[in-house]
Amino acid sequence: MSVLVIGSVALDSVKTPFGEVEEALGGSATYASASASFFDTVNLVAVVGEDFGEKNIQPLSGFEIDLSGLVRSPGKTFRWKGYYTYNLNEAITTETCLNVFADFNPILSDEHKKASHVFLANIDPELQLKVLEQIEKPEIILLDTMNFWIENKKDALIETIKKVNILVLNDAEARELVGEANLIKAAGKIREMGPDRVIIKKGEHGALMFSKSGIFSAPAYPLENIFDPTGAGDTFAGGLIGYLSDVHGKSEEDFRRGVIFGSAMASFVVEKFSLDRLKILTWEEVRDRYCQFKALTHFE
Amino acid sequence: MSVLVIGSVALDSVKTPFGEVEEALGGSATYASASASFFDTVNLVAVVGEDFGEKNIQPLSGFEIDLSGLVRSPGKTFRWKGYYTYNLNEAITTETCLNVFADFNPILSDEHKKASHVFLANIDPELQLKVLEQIEKPEIILLDTMNFWIENKKDALIETIKKVNILVLNDAEARELVGEANLIKAAGKIREMGPDRVIIKKGEHGALMFSKSGIFSAPAYPLENIFDPTGAGDTFAGGLIGYLSDVHGKSEEDFRRGVIFGSAMASFVVEKFSLDRLKILTWEEVRDRYCQFKALTHFE
Repeated sequence: MSVLVIGSVALDSVKTPFGEVEEALGGSATYASASASFFDTVNLVAVVGEDFGEKNIQPLSGFEIDLSGLVRSPGKTFRWKGYYTYNLNEAITTETCLNVFADFNPILSDEHKKASHVFLANIDPELQLKVLEQIEKPEIILLDTMNFWIENKKDALIETIKKVNILVLNDAEARELVGEANLIKAAGKIREMGPDRVIIKKGEHGALMFSKSGIFSAPAYPLENIFDPTGAGDTFAGGLIGYLSDVHGKSEEDFRRGVIFGSAMASFVVEKFSLDRLKILTWEEVRDRYCQFKALTHFE
Repeated sequence: MSVLVIGSVALDSVKTPFGEVEEALGGSATYASASASFFDTVNLVAVVGEDFGEKNIQPLSGFEIDLSGLVRSPGKTFRWKGYYTYNLNEAITTETCLNVFADFNPILSDEHKKASHVFLANIDPELQLKVLEQIEKPEIILLDTMNFWIENKKDALIETIKKVNILVLNDAEARELVGEANLIKAAGKIREMGPDRVIIKKGEHGALMFSKSGIFSAPAYPLENIFDPTGAGDTFAGGLIGYLSDVHGKSEEDFRRGVIFGSAMASFVVEKFSLDRLKILTWEEVRDRYCQFKALTHFE
């Protein structure tokens, strides 16, 4: 098995109460690929500009990621600038320059078309749909989105949602997508749109997974210091799809373990800027944190 | 073993998006006692006014609660009036009339002084301290409080906190009590004040219990319809202290089970106004919901 990740590779300028970085490697596909690579082989599909040099790609070099799908196009790389106050649940965007991303048209290689496990990270749902149509025999397709697409491309988004196995989104987005304040009811309505499973991320309050098997409530890892929350959601999704691909899992128990591994990965990425924490992360630390999640919730 | 509950018995007028009641039986001691009575013998200590008649006490008659400590004083019964919007996490108080509660001076009977498990529900910390001093050989003392006392009687509250085993409070109160935004750090600071355990309630996001054994993250039961959240916190505390008294438990595992039983009881009480749901609740339903909490969080 191998994982295909389609999303953004970006240069992020981020300020948090604890520090700041300028043009650090970011983007949904970056975080998700690095996270998934702890579990299985990963193929990344994204676009960067001519300004994206050796220095920029360097942070990804330590991970086992096939970068043959990282296209270089004329123009500048996607840039995001934002900051967090002490309410680390919410990023405040000050600048988004799509640049080469505005004309991104992902054409998959023959090998990529054979992917079994696909993470469609948060990009224009029309692009997500285009990618989906090229995958020959997908086993599990995990979709992320955001409020911007709910508000501006709802029809294309609904078409895409129809075709995926799992939709992952945050609590506010779930409420907005179906116009329902109660999350349990909202998840029910989303599942009626197509996906077998809906995972609602609640930031520091963990995540809820809804399926025909019932509800799984995953805790967040209690962190005393969150340095930079950027990429936490994509790191979560990357860990989940990577784990599912590795174990070739489709049972409720597999999905629950995947959600916990995803949560564990996310709990590491926020400890430093960009990929700085994942770069030095060991598999033993991941296993250990998985066990800590168990200790956190276990009762007889 | 038996449980002693000291707190308020009140007449509540509540409006929620789903209905309203006028002068229904409420108060912290009412909810906590009814909840604890599912697990062990309960003694209630509180005060009501001359206006508190047979009709008012009637809802408590179905529970096994010793009411010999319910004093009748000249004046009117404590009344609370409030409402909830669709944000059911927050009650908006429109009127609080302490009435006979303003001069409440709890004198325990010889039998009550022998209580092993005591819940000091949310009242003036000076009164809580007075009660504490009368208990001869307490095994577990569980304390609740609220922002009003943190802001207006902090010294007395700190004196009381020093002397209890467990402090239960909500997230905003925990942050306010020690001036620390991060809940894990806040819980650490509160434990340094005295209590072995701190339980932080997070409403629809469950609860966190902190002790030297680590952190326990308890989920909230996913409810599609919350009818009236009034009394949920006291019902939680009542279930916890009742369970601990019944099993005579002091291990981490006992406390975790207690927190889940408390959460289960709270998940029922919000389904109707006042004690209406607890009045018809069966032990089988409680056991069943306990199992549902396990199914909700379990992974291997």
